Parts: sequence; structure tokens; C-alpha cells
Amino acid sequence: MRVILVYDVEQKRVAKVLKLVRRYLDWIQNSAFEGDITPSKLEELKTRLRKLIDPKKDSVVIFKMKGIPYEKETIGISKSSTDKLL
Amino acid sequence: MRVILVYDVEQKRVAKVLKLVRRYLDWIQNSAFEGDITPSKLEELKTRLRKLIDPKKDSVVIFKMKGIPYEKETIGISKSSTDKLL
Repeated sequence: MRVILVYDVEQKRVAKVLKLVRRYLDWIQNSAFEGDITPSKLEELKTRLRKLIDPKKDSVVIFKMKGIPYEKETIGISKSSTDKLL
Repeated sequence: MRVILVYDVEQKRVAKVLKLVRRYLDWIQNSAFEGDITPSKLEELKTRLRKLIDPKKDSVVIFKMKGIPYEKETIGISKSSTDKLL
């Protein structure tokens, strides 16, 4: 399953969340990631995120793509190393 | 057309980029937006973004959805006012 994930968490938790999500998805830029992930791995990531974040202050949004997902276009520089593979 | 847009620009340009993109798409959180937009409006937005950003330092990634787009899930709080409408 193709997903895009964006997070908005308090500064003190940014490094931990970044490190966790990078183990599952490809970093695009700033606080955005994308990648292919199995439903079970996604559940695992969500469980770990729930333990890491403060649900009253932090936010993680996951877009789960259905079928042919999307066309990606970058304006300005590409900060993602994965773009070179596309 | 449904799009998700994320940006990663230098601090001094954040406010201007935020203000511009909000005129076209709904803010989700941090530097992420989503919304329905016509191809001509998207071209207009892209033209304005290109004038605003420094293409050597800043990055804007646009995901253009095809067909049935995605399922959205939020972990933690929802910072987006549009989520309440879904």
C-alpha cells in the first residue's frame, strides 16, 4: 500500500518521530514521508507512533492511496534522495 | 483534481508561502495542505510559487491524485479545521 505521511509534533519529539518513521517510509522533506508499506507494518508504525507522541498536542496524518496513486511534482529543489530513483 | 501539497522553505519565506497556498488549498498541519483544485488554478498556484520561492533552497512537492484518491487517518489531534467536515 502506498502512503504519504506528514507529522506536526512538538520540537522535543521531532527527532524521535523522524527516526521512527524513517525506518518504515522514505523521507521527502521537512516532516513529510512516502513509501510502500504492508498493512501489518503500517499498524506496527501506528502503534509505535501512538506510544511516542502526545495525542493532545501532536498530529500525524496518513494518506493511504487506493489504486494508481498519484503523480508527484517538485517545485524548487528536491530534498528527497528517493526522487532520483523515480 | 485532488492534490496534497507539502513545502519546505526557508523560515523567512514561510509566511508568504503559507498565505499563498491557503488561498488555493486547505491547510492540514504544519506545512501540509490538501484540496480539490482545477488544473488551471493549480498552474496559477505553481507560477506564483515559482516567483516566491528560491528554487535553489526551497522545495514544494505536489501529489496529484488519480481516480479514487485516498483514505485519511489522523493519529493524535487533528489540527485541520477541514477534518471536521469529512
